[in-house]
This record gives sequence, C-alpha cells and structure tokens, in this order.
Amino acid sequence: MKTGFVLAVCLLSGCTVTKQTEAPIALKEMGSFHIGGREVVIKGKTAPKVELTPGVPSNIDPNETYAVEQMYAQYFVPSTVKCKYPLLLWHGAWLTGATYETTPDGREGWLNYFVKHGWPVYLSDAVERGRAGWAPFPDVFTGDPIFLTKENARARFRLEGSQFPMEAYDQFVKQAVPRWTTNNKATIAAYTQLVDKVCPCVILVHSQSGLFGAMVAEARPEKVKALVMVEPANGGANPAALKNVPILAVYGDFIDQDPRWSKIKAVVGKYYEAVRMAGGSVDIYELPKMGIKGNSHMVMMDKNSDQVAGVIQNWLTRRGLYN
Amino acid sequence: MKTGFVLAVCLLSGCTVTKQTEAPIALKEMGSFHIGGREVVIKGKTAPKVELTPGVPSNIDPNETYAVEQMYAQYFVPSTVKCKYPLLLWHGAWLTGATYETTPDGREGWLNYFVKHGWPVYLSDAVERGRAGWAPFPDVFTGDPIFLTKENARARFRLEGSQFPMEAYDQFVKQAVPRWTTNNKATIAAYTQLVDKVCPCVILVHSQSGLFGAMVAEARPEKVKALVMVEPANGGANPAALKNVPILAVYGDFIDQDPRWSKIKAVVGKYYEAVRMAGGSVDIYELPKMGIKGNSHMVMMDKNSDQVAGVIQNWLTRRGLYN
Repeated sequence: MKTGFVLAVCLLSGCTVTKQTEAPIALKEMGSFHIGGREVVIKGKTAPKVELTPGVPSNIDPNETYAVEQMYAQYFVPSTVKCKYPLLLWHGAWLTGATYETTPDGREGWLNYFVKHGWPVYLSDAVERGRAGWAPFPDVFTGDPIFLTKENARARFRLEGSQFPMEAYDQFVKQAVPRWTTNNKATIAAYTQLVDKVCPCVILVHSQSGLFGAMVAEARPEKVKALVMVEPANGGANPAALKNVPILAVYGDFIDQDPRWSKIKAVVGKYYEAVRMAGGSVDIYELPKMGIKGNSHMVMMDKNSDQVAGVIQNWLTRRGLYN
Repeated sequence: MKTGFVLAVCLLSGCTVTKQTEAPIALKEMGSFHIGGREVVIKGKTAPKVELTPGVPSNIDPNETYAVEQMYAQYFVPSTVKCKYPLLLWHGAWLTGATYETTPDGREGWLNYFVKHGWPVYLSDAVERGRAGWAPFPDVFTGDPIFLTKENARARFRLEGSQFPMEAYDQFVKQAVPRWTTNNKATIAAYTQLVDKVCPCVILVHSQSGLFGAMVAEARPEKVKALVMVEPANGGANPAALKNVPILAVYGDFIDQDPRWSKIKAVVGKYYEAVRMAGGSVDIYELPKMGIKGNSHMVMMDKNSDQVAGVIQNWLTRRGLYN
C-alpha cells in the first residue's frame, strides 16, 4: 500500500477506556425535526382507488406537490454538557440512525455512550432512509432502490469471526432499509443544511457517510471542528479545504485479508494524504495495531463498542474538544 | 348519527390540565429494537452493477434472503416511574413515530409529555414505515406505495382554520413517508409481537392505527390495560374481546362539517357500540363539547396539544393506571 498509513501510538495516559456509567441519562432537551429537501410537482399519473376506512372512499390525487429529499434528525441534549460542540452521528449505507442506538445484542450503543459523557448528540436518518422518507421513483429518485440481503451483510461488513455479536445477527439484518445510488447530491445538500442549523460541531461518520461528512466539511470547514471517520467508504473532492479540520480515521480488523476493504482503504488513504499535503491533520487509528483486535466494519455494534468509543472520546479530549 | 355518542362530562376536579415541567428528562433507560417480520427468498432478478466506492466494484446479488415486515420501537424509561404499565404510542398513516416527537412548530410533543409524567414510553415505526424499512414490491409487498401530497394532507387532516400550527405546515409535510394499503396483516402481526414483548401496557393509537390497536387488543385483551383511540380511522373485528379493556376515544373539532370524517366517526361508532353491548366501557370525548375548541385530526401537534394530553392523562389517572 502506497498511502503511508501511520500507526497511531496510544499512550497509556491517553487511552484509558471510559466505562459506561450506570447513572440515569439526564436530558435538558430531547426532540426531532426534518430539514432540507425541495418540493416537486408530479403530473400525468393515474389516481389509485382507495378505501382506507371500509365504505369511505378516499380521494388520493397523485398529481400534486411532494416534499422530497429532506432528512430527519433527533437530538438529545444532556443536562450537563461537557464539551464545546455537539456531536453529529451519521450512519452508513442501508442503515438509519438506529445504527448508534442499542446494539443488536441489547447493549447501549454510541448514542447513549456520548450522551452519558455530556455530548449533545444529533442522530439522523439521511435522505431516502428511515424517518427521512423517500420519493416516488423513477419520477423523482432516479434508478431503482437496492436492498441489502441477509447473505450480503455478513460478508460486506466483515462480520464472520469478528467481535460482531453474531448471535444477534437477525436483529441487525432487520435494521436494513433500501437505498439508492443516485441521491448523493441531495443527501449532501440536506446534511449541509443540518450543519448550517446546528453547528459548529464534531461530525462522526461511518462507511457511506464518509463521503457525505468529507464533502460537507469541505463546504463548511469553519463549522466542522473535527471529523471522525469510522471505516469511511470514500473521502471528499477538495482535500485542501480540510487543512484546519482535524480528522481521526478509525479502522477495524481483517482489512488486509479482504480485497474489497483493502481497496476502499487505499482509495480513502489517498484522500488523507492529500489533506496532509495541504497542511491538514489526519490521525489514522488501525485498531489491531493498537492492540484492539477483531473489530468488524460495524465497530459501534461490536462487543467492544464501548472500548472503541473510548478511543474516540480520548482523541476528542486530546484535541481540546472535551472538558 | 345513530351511534349514540355520549358527551363526556368533564368535572373540574378531573380535568386539571397538567403543564409540561421545565425539569430535565431523567431516563433510566433509552434504546431501540426491531421486532417481528419474516424472511423471504427472492429469485430470478438481475443483479445491478454498482460501484459504491469509485474503482471498487460492489457485489450485489438480489436473489437472496430478505428480512421483511419487521417494525421498529424506541423506548424511554423515566428514572421515576409513576404508573403501572408502559405507554405505547402508535402513529397514523403516512407517518412514523416522529408524530409524537417535537411538534412541527417546535414545541415538545406527547412523547416528552408522557415521559416527563413518569410513563415508560415505546415510540414505534409500523411495518413499512420509517426505521422499520420496506420490502421489494411487487415481489413481497403487493400493490404500489401511496404518497401523501402537500395539497392532500391539508384537507385530509382538517388542518385549515384549526389549532394546527399552519405556519409550520412545510415541516409537517416533510414528516410524510409512503404507505401501502396491503400490509394490514403484517402490521398487526408485528404489533402483536411488540405487545407480547413489552406489555401489559396502555396503547394510544391515532387514525390508521385505530385498526391496529383494536385488532391487537382483541388478540391480547389481558395485556392491554387501556386503549386510547385518538380519531381512529377504524375499529377491530371482534368487539366482545374488549369487554374488559377500557377504551377512551378522543375527537377533535369540525367533524360534523366534514363528510368524510363524519362517515369515519360513524363507522367506528358502531364498533364502540358493539364493545358496550358486550359489556365493555367506552368513553367518547368530543373535545369541542368539553369546551376544547378547534382541534384538527393531528391533535398531538395542535397548539393546545398539551391540554389534550392532559385530558388523556386525567382519564388514565381516573382509571387507576397512574399513581
């Protein structure tokens, strides 16, 4: 690999794993909103005949105005805030904000971890996913939705033989929602509006949202105080824009044995290198080289998810973003 | 109208409107899970060519196993529980659990209201909606999805001239997600599994979920300690099963002037009557007759949403379900 990954040396003093507290979650605020999107008028469709309550015909005219390409965000503001900025958790492909909630085997996820540590957290469903809704296709969304199958997720996310709780695999598969491959522009537009509304902030991205996080941070570098990229599937397009946005990249185990993940890591590695060449700071944490073994792509669901959250929490602390 | 609606007389002592507290929300637990559904194998489809990371071809075989017809639930357990049973909030058609979160104009919704009053609350996305995901159609879901347009929602939910915060109408329209008309059986099956997992409980339903709440309560009458039906679009099929499940039905304003809502109310009214004939208890609160004027179909978002929550809270208290 030519991209020159640096082994992050983890000093004992900086890597104390913070444990989940048993104390209640005290929230000053909890709520949600939709943001972004546009209106589209559709014409020329045939109205369906619908009786939603038997005996009461329902007037449904499809040739009207649709709200499309909005996204959804749910926020949790702790009573005692211990950091300078809120933390935004962005999920990967085929998934929703549920990624960061309870792990498939029933442990507390990263949402609870960071809220309990005093971070106001914005958990979101990207355009086309979950509570964000989706638009008629091919009228508005182009192309067909793509579904994640039970067989595919296992290989795609490097779960076999990892720290992923395979006994709860069926629970994980139920989290999957359809995705398109044609909505990047709309997704980035909505995320940019989210950042304009709630930032300055720290953004933590996973997998597909690596692209979204990098593109939005490039567009709003003054608002993104740090970018944590957990196994990103891609970087951005204008790396020099991130010269003042510190980046932490986190990688799990078994990547060298997986041709697809090796390639993805190399592609994004070139992006890190370009950010560094422009004067930016990129810390690349390869967990196995730090003694944290066996992580899958779904790090936030793995049995040692708290340990990895602690590594991220400590990096944010050393970066001066946590009191 | 032949269905004999009874005017609920609201004694001053029983109708004190409980105000939202400014105190933080103290949660003992917060998490989520998916439940229900089945696995389906699809065959004979052509694999799409996909490059999710440029230069890295992605293997997507659609002829595999899909998890379908599951639902999603998010729970909030207060540190101090003040009731005997948890409260389940079920949303209406084209909507998700977001119905009960922040109102479109930014006030706290019924989720916060009831959590702050000491109810463990399960907020859910029904089969096919929001974080529950949706299945390939016409392979698994039959028929086409139906979308709610901006023009339609206004009339359908009796919003014009009501207490609905029309200044935030665009925010509300963004909450809409597609629905099918062919998934009642699957939806009821998943809700029944939810009830088997987390009840005994109180279930509060709205609009479309009137059908689901009634059907599930009929199937599990020993587990449903009360059923609050907010403008239900339908009742169940076996009213005698609810002879020991107290029902509160809540109706907003302008129903008599709306031919469609008058018919719906009459249809469900026959169900209430049948429950009563079987020895059951149904309290029907027509809010305008109680002096609470101007409510739309989206009662939980109207400007007086806390006032109506208070009416429900007081009914639950009088029924012995709240300490």
